[in-house]
Amino acid sequence: MGKEDFVKEITNIDEDFAKWYTDIVLKAELADYTDTKGCIAIKPYGYAIWENIQKYADEEFKKTGVKNVYFPVLIPESLLQKEKDHVEGFAPEVAWVTEAGENQLEEKYCIRPTSETIISTMYSKWLNSWRDLPFLYNQWCNVLRWEKETRPFLRSREFLWQEGHTIHETAEEAIERTVQMLDVYVDIIENLLAMPVLKGQKTESEKFSGAEFTYTVESLMHDGRALQAGTSHYFGQKFSKPFNIKFQNREGKEEFAYQTSWGISTRLIGAIIMAHGDNRGLKLPPKVAPIQAVIVPVASHKEGVLEAASALFEKLNSDFRMKLDDRSQYSPGFKFNDWEMRGVPVRIELGPRDIENNKCVFVRRDTNEKIEVSLDEVNEKLAQVLDDIQNNMFNMCKENVEKRTTIARNMEEFNHNLEVNQGYIKAMWCGSAECENKIHEETGAKSRCIPFEQEKISDTCVYCGRKADKMVYWGRQY
Amino acid sequence: MGKEDFVKEITNIDEDFAKWYTDIVLKAELADYTDTKGCIAIKPYGYAIWENIQKYADEEFKKTGVKNVYFPVLIPESLLQKEKDHVEGFAPEVAWVTEAGENQLEEKYCIRPTSETIISTMYSKWLNSWRDLPFLYNQWCNVLRWEKETRPFLRSREFLWQEGHTIHETAEEAIERTVQMLDVYVDIIENLLAMPVLKGQKTESEKFSGAEFTYTVESLMHDGRALQAGTSHYFGQKFSKPFNIKFQNREGKEEFAYQTSWGISTRLIGAIIMAHGDNRGLKLPPKVAPIQAVIVPVASHKEGVLEAASALFEKLNSDFRMKLDDRSQYSPGFKFNDWEMRGVPVRIELGPRDIENNKCVFVRRDTNEKIEVSLDEVNEKLAQVLDDIQNNMFNMCKENVEKRTTIARNMEEFNHNLEVNQGYIKAMWCGSAECENKIHEETGAKSRCIPFEQEKISDTCVYCGRKADKMVYWGRQY
Repeated sequence: MGKEDFVKEITNIDEDFAKWYTDIVLKAELADYTDTKGCIAIKPYGYAIWENIQKYADEEFKKTGVKNVYFPVLIPESLLQKEKDHVEGFAPEVAWVTEAGENQLEEKYCIRPTSETIISTMYSKWLNSWRDLPFLYNQWCNVLRWEKETRPFLRSREFLWQEGHTIHETAEEAIERTVQMLDVYVDIIENLLAMPVLKGQKTESEKFSGAEFTYTVESLMHDGRALQAGTSHYFGQKFSKPFNIKFQNREGKEEFAYQTSWGISTRLIGAIIMAHGDNRGLKLPPKVAPIQAVIVPVASHKEGVLEAASALFEKLNSDFRMKLDDRSQYSPGFKFNDWEMRGVPVRIELGPRDIENNKCVFVRRDTNEKIEVSLDEVNEKLAQVLDDIQNNMFNMCKENVEKRTTIARNMEEFNHNLEVNQGYIKAMWCGSAECENKIHEETGAKSRCIPFEQEKISDTCVYCGRKADKMVYWGRQY
Repeated sequence: MGKEDFVKEITNIDEDFAKWYTDIVLKAELADYTDTKGCIAIKPYGYAIWENIQKYADEEFKKTGVKNVYFPVLIPESLLQKEKDHVEGFAPEVAWVTEAGENQLEEKYCIRPTSETIISTMYSKWLNSWRDLPFLYNQWCNVLRWEKETRPFLRSREFLWQEGHTIHETAEEAIERTVQMLDVYVDIIENLLAMPVLKGQKTESEKFSGAEFTYTVESLMHDGRALQAGTSHYFGQKFSKPFNIKFQNREGKEEFAYQTSWGISTRLIGAIIMAHGDNRGLKLPPKVAPIQAVIVPVASHKEGVLEAASALFEKLNSDFRMKLDDRSQYSPGFKFNDWEMRGVPVRIELGPRDIENNKCVFVRRDTNEKIEVSLDEVNEKLAQVLDDIQNNMFNMCKENVEKRTTIARNMEEFNHNLEVNQGYIKAMWCGSAECENKIHEETGAKSRCIPFEQEKISDTCVYCGRKADKMVYWGRQY
């Protein structure tokens, strides 16, 4: 099978992006559909990406004083209902456990769609004095939301995530934590996943059910649709009052705690696929790639080739996440395509003539560039090339964002830009939910966020023409 | 509050072991009860123990080629029912999801009590040729079993665990894997958790529902009750046939795969508490302790003491998991008791006179021994003392096992020994389930395992007196 036949198996990225996406998920063996409708099985290669995200994120969380905990997956119905906005937001999409063994349960339990309610109940029990504060806890777990339309990683009924839940003595400290964790997410997404992000605040309609406000990091995919990559919520006392999370403050008076929560999930794997991938398949940023470089021996039947490949593998494997593809049933050409499709950042070719000349050939996944490297300096060179790839991938993504970010002063421009560019549209907004809804109905674009960095595009709302002083990013979303 | 008052808060270990256990769980802040009946919240200190177990185990698994994956938490009813013995074993204790949002589901889903069925379905889809084998996959996840009587960590409706699931080309290779993973568990439990284990095979009545056979590692608690610490199951083709997991073998013929599964869970935290704890509280083996040593400054109001304590903390913190207790609202005496109760292996006292003499004092949690240590060699000395404690704790545990292991040639001896020693009783067994059941009914003791290391106690079954050639360990259990 030649390269072209091989690539034919993957739908063209510009013809049908949705089908291209599914092809990558299945053929790169990241995940598969299961008999549990709307839920996927995450395969080793996909899960290894998640483990790299987890490891990085967990270390960053711990540096800020966060500790891990675990709360029950089942939440009694009565608890879910304690905060009005929260239950309205989540009840339509929760799964209910009503039976156990042969018995009908007296009170039904939902499977957590998120854990504010059960955690707030425990915080209420554990908190006494200002001296106990803050609680800075996080859990890595599964959650379930009964979505009608699902897509692997992006919108799965069950997904894996971390949810951080903190309580504080003052509103200021809680808001600071909300910002701090958003910044940790920016670091993860930009530096680990090589995707530039947009930081801002969600509008009232788009904020988390039960929050005072929601901060978000938004990312843009190859096709110009946006994806919410992580969120950080400030609750003020909206949960601490109904859940009775109070403490004796420094003045000896009772006060309700100030609360936050924040999360990122396995949907980031979907984001990596859609932000970086191309017609040759998946393209993984080196820092998060389960395999950073693959060695493919050429003419491996010739004497000494497999031995040299093995030696090279050993040499590199102590510094990098390496793979040696010594499968005898496939040709080098097949392997080249296979590992390109799986997004491995660097392929290292090694044949008899290379060995003779004490060198090997690096092939970059991002640029397809071939680089001859002396075997004496292969470790230093690989470190440098991986760094370059990481940076270049960030820049390619950034270019896409810049190319696809436009401004609109009226709905004509809005529609035109969306048609031509997809992408982000910067436009002024009067602040009314009505205009926001109308824009969504008419264009399919939602407000992404009110960015922290404001610009003045015009004086009037892009939809209603009334006075407006908020600049909002808009875009169709995943 | 003096030491005696403080210790009074914990029930005496010899008076009421069950209450002592619950006291430790709650007062050492390992976990707490929740509004979800039978489910606990694992607090930071308890979860940190689990993280240390996870980290160690995950590395050991990966060394043997195992990769992590994730499968859905919900299993369709029809899948659970495909293997007859399996569904009989688990159906009585599974929780059922029957509704989602406002809707009744067409087919109900159980929350996984274990994942053989959903994983087997996917393996059937993924496996083609002998070249694909083995699959060596593991998942870290939550599972749910609707137990009637629950106890924190030991028997919680929801618990965290890892479940490894492998398929192989031959029965020999699968059996080898079953043994290999059991040996990994022995390593974890003996070397990390400092508990000697008993290795053997479960009887037919006690094996996993659906397995050909189950290997187990058993441990003995302070009160002489046994606890199943980890199990490794060989399925042969018992799942691969109903689930159609087949491959083309080297002869080009279709063959069903040979399968294993193996797991350890958060119940190990319960085992640590009950195997090592004493009247002063929890006692953690240094290798798994979230805090390996705590520095308690003495006369900390005096000039230079807090600064010296801080400097000592910095010096040790790069090599060990350290805590500096600089809380001003508590006396040193209170802190001594508090950290003893929380099981920290070493307390380091540092006061003005120590500082003058360039030394500090180590106090061992296991022996209460005080050791003067020069501040110049504090890192080397702490490493050595932690090692000693780890070994001594293993030996103390081993002594308890030896003291409580007896032999019985008839039921009179059996009952007498159980009365006097609790613990393990070694006795011959004819192999009939009837004798096994009768022994359980009459004494409360179950077969722990048929140990790999057999001894001949007598020629006849301890219960029925018929000819017997199997030596079995018996004991009451958690």
